[in-house]
Order: sequence, then structure tokens, then C-alpha cells
Amino acid sequence: MRKKKVLSGIRPTGKLHIGHWAGVLSNWVELQEKYDCFFMVADWHALMSEYKNSGRIKSNIIDNVADWISWGIDPDKSVVFVQSDVSEHIELFMFLSVLTPLGWLSRCPTFKEQLKQLKDKDINTYAFLGYPALQASDILIYKANYVPVGEDQLPHLEITREIARRFHSIYKRSVFVEPQPLLTKAPKLLGIDNRKMSKSYNNFISLDEDDSSIETKIVSMFTDPLRLRKKDAGHPDTCNVFSYYKTFAPDLAGDVRTWCVNAGKGCRECKEVLAKKLIGIISDKRRRKKELLRDEDFLPSVLRDGARKARSFASRTLAEAKEAVYAVRDL
Amino acid sequence: MRKKKVLSGIRPTGKLHIGHWAGVLSNWVELQEKYDCFFMVADWHALMSEYKNSGRIKSNIIDNVADWISWGIDPDKSVVFVQSDVSEHIELFMFLSVLTPLGWLSRCPTFKEQLKQLKDKDINTYAFLGYPALQASDILIYKANYVPVGEDQLPHLEITREIARRFHSIYKRSVFVEPQPLLTKAPKLLGIDNRKMSKSYNNFISLDEDDSSIETKIVSMFTDPLRLRKKDAGHPDTCNVFSYYKTFAPDLAGDVRTWCVNAGKGCRECKEVLAKKLIGIISDKRRRKKELLRDEDFLPSVLRDGARKARSFASRTLAEAKEAVYAVRDL
Repeated sequence: MRKKKVLSGIRPTGKLHIGHWAGVLSNWVELQEKYDCFFMVADWHALMSEYKNSGRIKSNIIDNVADWISWGIDPDKSVVFVQSDVSEHIELFMFLSVLTPLGWLSRCPTFKEQLKQLKDKDINTYAFLGYPALQASDILIYKANYVPVGEDQLPHLEITREIARRFHSIYKRSVFVEPQPLLTKAPKLLGIDNRKMSKSYNNFISLDEDDSSIETKIVSMFTDPLRLRKKDAGHPDTCNVFSYYKTFAPDLAGDVRTWCVNAGKGCRECKEVLAKKLIGIISDKRRRKKELLRDEDFLPSVLRDGARKARSFASRTLAEAKEAVYAVRDL
Repeated sequence: MRKKKVLSGIRPTGKLHIGHWAGVLSNWVELQEKYDCFFMVADWHALMSEYKNSGRIKSNIIDNVADWISWGIDPDKSVVFVQSDVSEHIELFMFLSVLTPLGWLSRCPTFKEQLKQLKDKDINTYAFLGYPALQASDILIYKANYVPVGEDQLPHLEITREIARRFHSIYKRSVFVEPQPLLTKAPKLLGIDNRKMSKSYNNFISLDEDDSSIETKIVSMFTDPLRLRKKDAGHPDTCNVFSYYKTFAPDLAGDVRTWCVNAGKGCRECKEVLAKKLIGIISDKRRRKKELLRDEDFLPSVLRDGARKARSFASRTLAEAKEAVYAVRDL
């Protein structure tokens, strides 16, 4: 039996950080063992919000894919590619656009939400409104069975299914697969200041952070505010440092809980242990990344190869879609 | 000195009729002597309104281009191509979409107007809203200096220039040419029932109409309602039949005016003379068209050749645009 297919993507808008690992990449590494995965650098989607800062997108692509691979994505198991390298995405997007009612997009909750959140980005644009329709094309073109999403992305997946159904109903032919969500269980990793981890807050640890910088950032983290003195008992379940342990050192989490609630070790020492652990993990991937980047043609060739594989699927689906649209029918 | 460039297109939504000749094609035949012309079958644009009747688009393309050529468009002088054969159009469209404010499109008068007029077509869709932005891509990608338009299309051309300016201002580089309108002077040819000539009214004479059908249709035309009897003087300037004379038999117009205002000939006879004249013109083009269609590979090869020529321009402009978007700049 053939494996089910999964499509997922990351927008190359900046450096990847440990929040991406916790929320997306660690999940991808598991998914690639069970599914045929298409991992996409969503550069058209990036351009929708970053069109005024587009100068960095190309270098981000190489940098991000280097992280993907050093952290465990295997381009021999999964199709790793750049969205804009497979022009079939935007061609199918056109076919979907002609039958997508404006209201489905303008009433989409994420559209309204993002307009509010990204006020400085000037994204009240034609392309940004079409974000979910382009996503629909990304997903439908590979006939992906599953898409890993957070709760907030469920409306997009619903639009994808609606668009597929409308296409099938208008052209009286079933071309696409209706994708289902794979809800990501991982709780979001907060930034070192307990706010959302974000480029703009500069509160993240990147996936190739320097050792000394990791140390500095971890040691500066907020801990349990109710534990004022070393002899006070701590509350690990509300401590951001503990959530980092659960993600990056689950083997130590039991010990940490014990020394925290028993006031066995101080927060400073606790963070130093975490820093050491994280340095061990990240420095290893960082070395790997450096090696990958040393051979200047390696990553471009991975992406060329990925685009070729992606296109072999995408072009077949596009041909079926065109056939459905243009088949001569009685009018 | 290089010739200036012109871009113009027709949507392959049905058979072409003498209104298309009078309003568009006769103009193209003149333009191709003076300019480097890009004549485009706008099939993406057709799909925007005809996505529910898309089964005929492919055959319309061949049929329409056969008319273009039989009526005088010379593919050796001009680039004759199908929009969807040159994927650079939709790629540039994406780059333009990310920076086109929604309001420019939603406030476009033709958008609102068409929503009202084409109620049965269900065109309140994402693609249809983007119509002028795709047109902008069509025009800008060839750096066209001129676009033949009617008054009603001026807002679209204005949006094209605005989009070009916004691109130049964001990316600090001048890539596109701001196109200017070539206002078409030709008055619109009305249908044989004096209403707008239209597929839905079935009041047109197609560019390959049968002889007997031309006769029947011309003879059934409304003439001057104030001329009730043959001995009454007629008013050629308000007679639809006379406007046909001016378009298709300008050499006879003087005589017709004379016999009409002097009640020299009756309307029936006047229409019979017109019918004969029109049959002479159309039957000649119809024969030519039949010959073109006999060689099944001729028109496809014209279009392949046209797409190749179009792409050689389009891909250069697209590369310049990408270079501007992705050039590394200080942020």
C-alpha cells in the first residue's frame, strides 16, 4: 500500500529558531518516517508580507533549508523544495481563483486577524487576500491527505476543502483529495522573555545560535516569579525554563521537577544546566550546517532535485485539472 | 530607431463578429504597420467570467485566431500568441499582486459595473477582482508603450501605471514602461436589432457568417423609423444600416446618402446592396479561414511560434523584475 501524503511549509522570512523546531520541524522529522512528505519553502507566501523586505528572501531560503537538514529532515526520504521553483502551484492557483468566491477569503478569520497584527507591513493587498487560495493550490496539487496545522490554521484547511468541492462540482470530475488536519499537539515555546517567540521581539534562540550567546540568553530567562529565594519551592509547570527542558531535555525533566519543587537547586544553576544541554544539541547541528554550507552546490542541488520530484507530481495533477476545466462538454 | 510597442488582446469567449472587426481588428491591422504589436488571446481573462462554460475556450482560441489572420493580422509582422502559453504573465502577476492595494481593485469602476451586468455569471470571485492586475502584467511584461482602449478601459490603464510606479518606488529600480492609451475612435457597431452587438442577444453577424445568413440578417435590419414609405426622405445619420455602410463600404457611403435623403431607393433595396457588399467581403475571408483550418498544424504552429517570440520578451522583463525584487539591499 502506498503511504499517505503530507504537505507542510515554512515561510523564509528570517532565521529559524528553537520555536520552529518545537512547533514544526520536530514534528516533520517524525512525519517523514510514516508519510510521503512534501516540505516546502513557501517563498511566494513570504513575499506576501515581506515584499518590502524581499532582499533577504533568497538567502533565507538556503539558510533555512540548511537548518532543516541539519536538524533531521532527510531529502532522500522527503521532497524538499522551493514553492516558486514549481510554477505549477501558481498555474493551479489561477484555476482555483476563478471559482473562489471573494467572500470565502475576505471573511476568513486569519485575514482579518493578520491585517490587525501586521499593521506596519501594509498587507491589505490583493495577494494577501488570496493567501488561503494559494495554500489550497499548494496542498491540492500534491493530493496531500494530511496537513500538520495549529488550531488557528483550521479555517484555511476548510477553505481548501471547499475549493476542492466547488471545483469538483463545477467540472463534474473528481481531481483532488480533500486534506485532513494533523493537529500539532506541541505547545508553543515562548521566547526568553515569556512573550511569543518572534523575530521582532528578538527574544529567540536561533537554530544555529553561538554557544556563548545561548548561555547568555538562557541565563537571562525569566523563571518562576513566585520563587524569590533559592530556598522557596518552585512551580515548574508555570516556569518557561521548565518548558524548554521538556522540549530539549525530556530525560532531565523528572530531576528538574524534583529539585525545583524541593528547592534543591537555584534557578541560576537550573538555567546553567539547561544552557549546557542546549549548547550540546545546537552546536552539533551548527557544525552539521556549516559542513552543508561549505559545499556551495550541495543545497542548491538538493533543491533542484526536490523541485524535479515535486514537479513530477504537481504537473500530473495540473494536467488532470486542466483536462477537467477544458473538456468539451455539452453546454 | 526601434518601433514603439503595442499590446492588445481579445478574450476567446465565443465567435468573433463584425463588431469585433469594426471595434478592434480593423484597428489592429493598421497598428501592425506602424508598431511592434503583441496580439494576445486572453484565455486567462476569458476563464474569469466563463469558468462555468470553459469547455469551449480551447476551440474558440483556434477559431478566433483563424479569423484574426483571415481578416489581415500578419503573424510575420506581429506576435500572435495565447496568454496561458506564456507562464511569465502569471508569474509577474504574482509579483505585482503582493504590492497592489486591495482598494485599487475593489474601487475600480469596471469591477462594480461588471458585477451588476454579469449577474448570471457568478463572477464575484477572487480572480475577477484581480482582472486589472493581470492586465497590468500583460502590458508591463512587454514594456508596451501603447494599449488601444475604449473610454471605459481607461481606469484599467491607470491602475497599470499606478502598479508600475508602486513597483518602481518600492524596489528603487525602473523596470517597466508606463503605457499610454491609444483611444479607439471607431464608434461601436450596433447589432442588427439596434441593440449592443452581443452573443447573448444573437444579433450579430459573425466574421465567417454564411452568405444566405448574411442576406437574411441584413434584410431584417431596422432602418430609419421616420421613413415609413419609399417616397419619404431618409435620415442616414441615425440609420444603423448606414453605419454598416460606413464601416464596410465607405466607397458607397456617398451614393447611399444621396439616394436615402432623396428617397431615390427604398430601404429594402439599400439593404440588399449592403448584403451583397458584405457577402463579398465575408465570403472572401471565410474561404481564407477554411484554408487556414484545413492544415491542422498551421494555426497551432503560428501560436507556438508566437509564444516563443512573446516569451523571449516576457522572460527578459520578468528576470529584471525578479532581480529588482530580490536584490540584496540594506534593510
